[in-house]
Amino acid sequence: MLEQFRSKITEKKKIDGALSILQWDLETCTPKKGQEFLSEIVGYLTMKGYEISTSKEFVELLDKLKSNLNSLSPIDKKEVEIISEEIEKMKHIPSNEYQYFSELVVKAQGIWEQAKLSNNYKIYEDKLQEIFDYTLKFAKYNRKNEANLYDVVLNEYEKGMTTEKLDIFFESLKEEIVPLLQKIVAKGNPKRKLNFYNSIENQKKFNRKIGEYLGFDFDRGVVRESEHPFTLNVDKNDVRLTTKYVENTPFSAIFSTIHETGHGIYEQQIGDELKGTILACGGSMGIHESQSRFYENIIGRSKAFWKGIYSEAQNYNPILKEITIDDFYKEINIVEPSLIRTEADELTYSLHIMVRYEIEKELFSGNIKAKDLPKIWNEKMIKYLGIAPKYDSQGVLQDVHWAGGLIGYFPSYALGSAYSVQIYNAMKKDMDIDKVLENGEMDKIKNWLGDKIHKYGRLKETEEIIREITGEGLNPKYYIDYLKKKYSAIYNLDI
Amino acid sequence: MLEQFRSKITEKKKIDGALSILQWDLETCTPKKGQEFLSEIVGYLTMKGYEISTSKEFVELLDKLKSNLNSLSPIDKKEVEIISEEIEKMKHIPSNEYQYFSELVVKAQGIWEQAKLSNNYKIYEDKLQEIFDYTLKFAKYNRKNEANLYDVVLNEYEKGMTTEKLDIFFESLKEEIVPLLQKIVAKGNPKRKLNFYNSIENQKKFNRKIGEYLGFDFDRGVVRESEHPFTLNVDKNDVRLTTKYVENTPFSAIFSTIHETGHGIYEQQIGDELKGTILACGGSMGIHESQSRFYENIIGRSKAFWKGIYSEAQNYNPILKEITIDDFYKEINIVEPSLIRTEADELTYSLHIMVRYEIEKELFSGNIKAKDLPKIWNEKMIKYLGIAPKYDSQGVLQDVHWAGGLIGYFPSYALGSAYSVQIYNAMKKDMDIDKVLENGEMDKIKNWLGDKIHKYGRLKETEEIIREITGEGLNPKYYIDYLKKKYSAIYNLDI
Repeated sequence: MLEQFRSKITEKKKIDGALSILQWDLETCTPKKGQEFLSEIVGYLTMKGYEISTSKEFVELLDKLKSNLNSLSPIDKKEVEIISEEIEKMKHIPSNEYQYFSELVVKAQGIWEQAKLSNNYKIYEDKLQEIFDYTLKFAKYNRKNEANLYDVVLNEYEKGMTTEKLDIFFESLKEEIVPLLQKIVAKGNPKRKLNFYNSIENQKKFNRKIGEYLGFDFDRGVVRESEHPFTLNVDKNDVRLTTKYVENTPFSAIFSTIHETGHGIYEQQIGDELKGTILACGGSMGIHESQSRFYENIIGRSKAFWKGIYSEAQNYNPILKEITIDDFYKEINIVEPSLIRTEADELTYSLHIMVRYEIEKELFSGNIKAKDLPKIWNEKMIKYLGIAPKYDSQGVLQDVHWAGGLIGYFPSYALGSAYSVQIYNAMKKDMDIDKVLENGEMDKIKNWLGDKIHKYGRLKETEEIIREITGEGLNPKYYIDYLKKKYSAIYNLDI
Repeated sequence: MLEQFRSKITEKKKIDGALSILQWDLETCTPKKGQEFLSEIVGYLTMKGYEISTSKEFVELLDKLKSNLNSLSPIDKKEVEIISEEIEKMKHIPSNEYQYFSELVVKAQGIWEQAKLSNNYKIYEDKLQEIFDYTLKFAKYNRKNEANLYDVVLNEYEKGMTTEKLDIFFESLKEEIVPLLQKIVAKGNPKRKLNFYNSIENQKKFNRKIGEYLGFDFDRGVVRESEHPFTLNVDKNDVRLTTKYVENTPFSAIFSTIHETGHGIYEQQIGDELKGTILACGGSMGIHESQSRFYENIIGRSKAFWKGIYSEAQNYNPILKEITIDDFYKEINIVEPSLIRTEADELTYSLHIMVRYEIEKELFSGNIKAKDLPKIWNEKMIKYLGIAPKYDSQGVLQDVHWAGGLIGYFPSYALGSAYSVQIYNAMKKDMDIDKVLENGEMDKIKNWLGDKIHKYGRLKETEEIIREITGEGLNPKYYIDYLKKKYSAIYNLDI
């Protein structure tokens, strides 16, 4: 019985693997007019996977296994549980709607790209509304009795997450971080030196070095380019990152590479004992983002990290020879309200997320429609960051997520930031992190994360992992304390 | 009934589309250790396509349609015929062997790459033997009564092709081209000026220009890099080429780009009325190669073509400012026995094919084994080209084809060369080609080929197309005459 189950899982994993490659291709390679056919292929294969999961044969198999859960190994048991939950969700969705939606999001991504490139929100808003409508509809199918349907989609990315918890989280950001930002803005910033010409070829070489330095295994992964950087795993032996190079702002690609490498190392360190199971990938979006943001901010924007690699950085960016490491540290931590989330500094980043969180919430409550977004976006940007975009391409159109059907995903970034600080505090108890970084012993960091988090894949829930490491669950207090301490020191603020 | 048939075809085309993307990914992107899982996915999807084609339902449907062939449109009719032939072939092959073979060739390509990079034929020879054995076995399943099984595989790529016809073809090459080559070698060559440093970035820009100039539509196609340049079509709106850049030999990439663009333009010009059918792609390998070699040699190595684009070429390759177009023309037509087929000049090219043809024939007859190939390869190179490789990586390991299961494919290159001259002679009757090229009116060439060849896809057989255009079938005489005329002029030979 277990054997039949495994054989079905193997089949599903092959379809999912093919879908990952197609998704990767769409974002890194497919020519404009080829997107339509590819989206049909994606719809077709998604449907094939759906058919396996919802087949009478498979459901019966699963029911039998469920009736005997305690006789299973922990891995088999967890797999059965996760799949049962997924099927429970899926079986409420009519298959034609499911297929329609999976094709819709592929097409929408093409249209989003055009809309962004041409700064024309109008051509995209209907598709976006449709995506929201479908997401809402699916959430309703799924939990008819749920008062707050936004909670249903939040749970897709972070089990147990609720609007109530997030409201508390973002309320504390409003109370503590928005005023801190205002103080910093009043103080002003040093003149930037880090925007300088560096050829794309040269940037690529340095970014490759950084990936290797952090411990990304290039025999089991690749780095390419895309408009919107992302990480995708086919399996632990095939992990793919993208970054985006801009000739005169080399540090944009560098932090993006460090961020995605954080995701990538997570996937590459999944335990071998999970091979062939659906547990063989990263856990919730929140814990995934905790890893990327840990590498990007806590490691990547620390002085100790750059001490370990500064001479190498100077080789690829000769202008750094004229900049002391103290000045460099200040520069990579400049706080400045800006328009683009992915290029935001560590402090303002979560405020960008707050804008998206509030919009998703209101769209779900039906108070607003997709057509209202540009206006509302800009109002919220003014309210929290003090600036608003002149062009929608730098505003509501900047992110691909919603076009890709990822609604309820954005809060994971903020959760990830909060988790990352909790993890950092725990890691400090086991090693002198600054010393490790100065010595360039990046493997020590990687191994610690591998052992405490990565190896488990989806075997353990995020909550469980965080509790084991830190002794408590999500607590935004540490994150806010960390930000206040770090930035009051950099800006000489007395808070 | 026709509707059910169309719906099955649509399904097959989606699976084939996914397989094309996976194949593309394997050759341009997949990390080394990711190849294994990807090969399993390829095996799985190949099997799914096989299951559709061989399902009772589909075969019955096809039988019904076949019993009523004359009531069908020409397009439907041709489709039914081709699919029936394919199924006829497939149904003799046990499905487990079919799946095994499709995974084998993916794995073999990975091993071939390692073997080539490390110049180690040993690690690859067993896999190669296995591929030959399976190909032979499948040929046997397919036509038990065929005396010459090599003819069976030749037919996979060129309908109606036989060892007998090819023997005549290659015999005339031996008689006419080998002595011509010896005369040219005796005369000696001018000192080469075209090997100079040009950055990869700059080369990419010029190659892109060339692609656009020839008429490749980049909204419906992409160009990337791979070890072995190739063209792949997902459909006419998604046509993909690769090329390979070498810093100090920019003209290597240029001729490779022109060659692949010839394939690419063919695919992009398939008639819209064939959309959604299995006829919507290029015809036999021979006719496909006739298009790439037409662009590469007849166009790309002509003086008139370069007259039309020489000032642009000088912009990207400043050294050309010091070279007259007459000298340039002589240089790009230098005849010199060399080791690598893809970099061979127009005259010696077919001799490289002859080496492969003879080896395939002998392997099929059982006279030799894969383990003997390095030795035999080198002997034949000496015999026909007067030189032999020092390293297998430059000899028997140079091409990916056999690793990919393409046995019987190589002769198509020679056939393509022969067809290309027959097509050229026909085109000359309709336009002053030299004038068209000098004026840079590349669309005229493209449209002529589109109208006479490309639009038909697989609706017409190669033989039929060639007869319509030229009034006769394959005839190597024109090709040999063309070579003799062109090269005796360049080398001032009296032959």
